[in-house]
Amino acid sequence: MPSLPKALFFDVFGTLVDWRGSIAREARALLEPLGYAVNWADFADAWRAQYQPSLEEVRAGRQPYAKLDHLHRRNLEQILPRFAITGLTEETLRALNLAWHRLDAWPDVPAGLARLKRQFLIAPVSNGNISLMADLARRNDIVWDAILGAEIAGDYKPKPSVYLAAAGAFDLEPGACMMVAAHSSDLAAAAACGLLTAHVARRDEHGPGRGEAAPKVPVDIVAASIGDLATKLGA
Amino acid sequence: MPSLPKALFFDVFGTLVDWRGSIAREARALLEPLGYAVNWADFADAWRAQYQPSLEEVRAGRQPYAKLDHLHRRNLEQILPRFAITGLTEETLRALNLAWHRLDAWPDVPAGLARLKRQFLIAPVSNGNISLMADLARRNDIVWDAILGAEIAGDYKPKPSVYLAAAGAFDLEPGACMMVAAHSSDLAAAAACGLLTAHVARRDEHGPGRGEAAPKVPVDIVAASIGDLATKLGA
Repeated sequence: MPSLPKALFFDVFGTLVDWRGSIAREARALLEPLGYAVNWADFADAWRAQYQPSLEEVRAGRQPYAKLDHLHRRNLEQILPRFAITGLTEETLRALNLAWHRLDAWPDVPAGLARLKRQFLIAPVSNGNISLMADLARRNDIVWDAILGAEIAGDYKPKPSVYLAAAGAFDLEPGACMMVAAHSSDLAAAAACGLLTAHVARRDEHGPGRGEAAPKVPVDIVAASIGDLATKLGA
Repeated sequence: MPSLPKALFFDVFGTLVDWRGSIAREARALLEPLGYAVNWADFADAWRAQYQPSLEEVRAGRQPYAKLDHLHRRNLEQILPRFAITGLTEETLRALNLAWHRLDAWPDVPAGLARLKRQFLIAPVSNGNISLMADLARRNDIVWDAILGAEIAGDYKPKPSVYLAAAGAFDLEPGACMMVAAHSSDLAAAAACGLLTAHVARRDEHGPGRGEAAPKVPVDIVAASIGDLATKLGA
């Protein structure tokens, strides 16, 4: 690594928060009292499986940018019939969609980010919209310097404009910024834009043992947790 | 007031921070060692006097949106000759321009915002750019939920799009948001967009006794400080 970054940009879904366990819990809490009994982890996986295809519609220019909340809602309506869940009220659909605003951070995250914030600017560079990021920050005691990412750029990662808009918002060259993610595809795209990169292993993101245990691309730092990243960056 | 807001939006220059005293101090600290002796409060006033005309170029569509940092720099170069300050190095010009990132909050602000944050989403809706807002937040122990305002909207207050983009970023109707400012013009524009409004008196913004002691337009709340606003909102 040529020199330390000035800003750290964080992927959020999977890297900082356990979307799978949280969505399973939230969906169950809302739908089980209505009489539905499904495999809630499968439900979370099915909802998330719609994620990249829906982003691709925007990235490819086939639909204008819309907040992730809107894409999540459309994706939800697509998967509900597969689980034989029908006739939910608008109120329930809204509450269910907002489950993405109630995700829990992995245990190492709040303290690790607090350490990093003493030395670096920190911001999410996520595909989640601003209100979603603000709600997750409150819920998990995260104090960002700013909320950057897809909604600022009007497009979705891994499009270069999202990483470059984040660096630009902090008046920094890409090389003064480090992307932190549990996904090699995100890090490869950030590196192609000139950012430094750090991989954080989230072995259980998609269920026990089903996550990226190690980067599949060259990165500047390999970390086991956000706390480990802080240590490796001297924070 | 029909009902309590869910989010509070804050004007920053003058309302939360003492730009005049801070710019005078920072300019003096940089330029006095170089042999310049001018009235530093007059210097701050002259720089700030270029502010609205430069924003108007963008608002009127005569130039594309540029960050306030860029407008500040151009305005600085326009006023320096009036004070017979010439031949500054690029490094000094840059450091001087970043004086706007080193403004001090009025004394009631950090504790008042901390009280308000327990009950409301809080964000700056300022004409300052994201990096400027992030630096002021760090300096003054302010913890925003997000940084909204001109850079998100790509235009400058009091254009309606700035207020409406802020409400939209939090997924709120304008009527669920309250604009807080020491300037009646800002509050009138926000109210025209459907936002609730609160006036905070900053009697000394432009020097002792030279600030808006009371609103000149109808507002929902009249407050003497951010702490007083918190009390009046039940926070």
